[in-house]
Amino acid sequence: MRPAMPRPSATTSPAGSGPAAAWPENPVLTRVWRGRQVESQHRGAWVVVDTAGRVVEGAGAVASPVFARSAIKSMQALPLLETGAAQRLDYGDDELALALASHDGEPIHTERVARLLGRMGRSVADLQCGPQAPGSAATRAALARSGERPTALHNNCSGKHAGFLALTVHLGVDSSRYLDPQAEPQQRVRAAVESMCGVASGTVDSATDGCSAPTFRIPLQSLATGIARVANPHGLEPARRAACERMQRAVAAHPDLIAGTRARICTDLVRVSGGRLFAKIGGEAVYLIGAVGRERGLAIKVDDGSYRGFHALIVELCARLGWLDAPQVAALEAWRDRTLLNWAGRAVGHVEVVA
Amino acid sequence: MRPAMPRPSATTSPAGSGPAAAWPENPVLTRVWRGRQVESQHRGAWVVVDTAGRVVEGAGAVASPVFARSAIKSMQALPLLETGAAQRLDYGDDELALALASHDGEPIHTERVARLLGRMGRSVADLQCGPQAPGSAATRAALARSGERPTALHNNCSGKHAGFLALTVHLGVDSSRYLDPQAEPQQRVRAAVESMCGVASGTVDSATDGCSAPTFRIPLQSLATGIARVANPHGLEPARRAACERMQRAVAAHPDLIAGTRARICTDLVRVSGGRLFAKIGGEAVYLIGAVGRERGLAIKVDDGSYRGFHALIVELCARLGWLDAPQVAALEAWRDRTLLNWAGRAVGHVEVVA
Repeated sequence: MRPAMPRPSATTSPAGSGPAAAWPENPVLTRVWRGRQVESQHRGAWVVVDTAGRVVEGAGAVASPVFARSAIKSMQALPLLETGAAQRLDYGDDELALALASHDGEPIHTERVARLLGRMGRSVADLQCGPQAPGSAATRAALARSGERPTALHNNCSGKHAGFLALTVHLGVDSSRYLDPQAEPQQRVRAAVESMCGVASGTVDSATDGCSAPTFRIPLQSLATGIARVANPHGLEPARRAACERMQRAVAAHPDLIAGTRARICTDLVRVSGGRLFAKIGGEAVYLIGAVGRERGLAIKVDDGSYRGFHALIVELCARLGWLDAPQVAALEAWRDRTLLNWAGRAVGHVEVVA
Repeated sequence: MRPAMPRPSATTSPAGSGPAAAWPENPVLTRVWRGRQVESQHRGAWVVVDTAGRVVEGAGAVASPVFARSAIKSMQALPLLETGAAQRLDYGDDELALALASHDGEPIHTERVARLLGRMGRSVADLQCGPQAPGSAATRAALARSGERPTALHNNCSGKHAGFLALTVHLGVDSSRYLDPQAEPQQRVRAAVESMCGVASGTVDSATDGCSAPTFRIPLQSLATGIARVANPHGLEPARRAACERMQRAVAAHPDLIAGTRARICTDLVRVSGGRLFAKIGGEAVYLIGAVGRERGLAIKVDDGSYRGFHALIVELCARLGWLDAPQVAALEAWRDRTLLNWAGRAVGHVEVVA
């Protein structure tokens, strides 16, 4: 497939909504069938690149920028390692995995983040990510039973925030400014992301993420380049190469810390691949996978931000690209179950992966 | 705006997925902004027709069929009234409103359906819609506190099922066959729907709805025609006209029975308009509104089935069409609040209605 160039949409934005949106007409990635007919569908783009940023394969407007959200937490964690902040705080691989995580707020996540904050003389009160109900249903139920309310530790980004805080303390910057886009810590984060993705400094728009951190809007193919390099860092300068290799080891050793213990595709892809797929989800249906040893990165964005059929699409693309063998695909079968049941338990339709 | 004719998509369906899907490239209806950039978007089609089925205004593939789902419960209830089944069972307006409802499973809904079933010598055990957790959070919490499990009475379609059952008992058909597409009750339902929408018998595909009832796939503009006629039935034959007028009265008198007591747009549109907007939601983001006294019907379908921005879109279209005046639009302001807050309570974006 040859990726199409983005075409601006004909619609324009009304006054007060900012600049007019240029948005491509991407192909259909997944269809939702009811009986023998399509009821709904999801459009989007996906792209595979090499570590030099050359497009190998893809569909849709792969040069269009998308908000990277949590999919680039690994790149955002580079300054934590490269400045020596992690070393000074004696970061374990488990704590580093949490810095890259969108976790489910289980005790294995929150207790580790709390201990880490304690080691830097900080606490949950210093986290600016806001409270979020844990993604884990069991943890939500346990909180409800005990009458506790979710805190910022349960926020899926609390490990990333602890990492930003560690960086800020290490740099001697006022720690209340750890999310400030103008202060040194986030300037370093932005520079690391731009460099990994191969985009010129100053060309990247940013906005505020769900956790209040800056998030960056980067062409889909450049995001794929960035994750290809995280997974295949041999061409990078030594300190960055060492940081990427350490992140790979941390994620491979602690797949349940980057997402959760139950039904999380990032955890399952890392576990099933033995860490050879460096996989990370982002808000509004963004996904990045770096294929270790293959010099390749994959980036996906669904236009409408829906996750329906998204996991099946990810597994299907990995299988087709030869990044998962048959037993590995079989081990991920739960993510490919696309039959839709109704309230009475009858099969009424299915989700089809088109891409 | 001139509605575009549907264009078949270039993609084809793989073996085993049934016939290839012809799906149009509909325009963007709503955009989700993060900061000053679009992050995601939702495509779809909408159309306004008159009671003769002439297209007045619209956008997208308005001649393409979509599954009507719960949006046509009024049309599906016509045989209940026209055969005399409702009269024989002494249906009150409240019970008739429930036959047209996608309700939240609150006690005002479930207790009425249970009493109605009792009057026909049937019970919850005769409902084939399956159990569903109530849409009402308060009712879900009350069930959890009491240790009760949701039943088929809580299913949002239980009133419709009770109506189908009443029709079946009245016709002397084995009541276990009340959902059977081949048996007389559902044949009558299908004929009423086809006739109201002005589509030729035998041209309509059907499938199984979330509640196991047959659901019909009908061109969007024909669905708008059907709802225009429900709301403006003076041109129909007398028994049907009387049935439509009775449904209008029932819905106007009991807006909280067609949806719920809290935060349901169908209830609020009916209440705010004093019953002049005959409004009904359907699964996968379908919406129908018949404008009483205006000879018009509106139909909307979002391609991806998402409800994000959907309510704001509905209110915006009604306002633009002049179906709601300024104070009515103000009373519906909660449905138009499109600011997106993050976990820390910061405004990070907004939803824009494009259509």
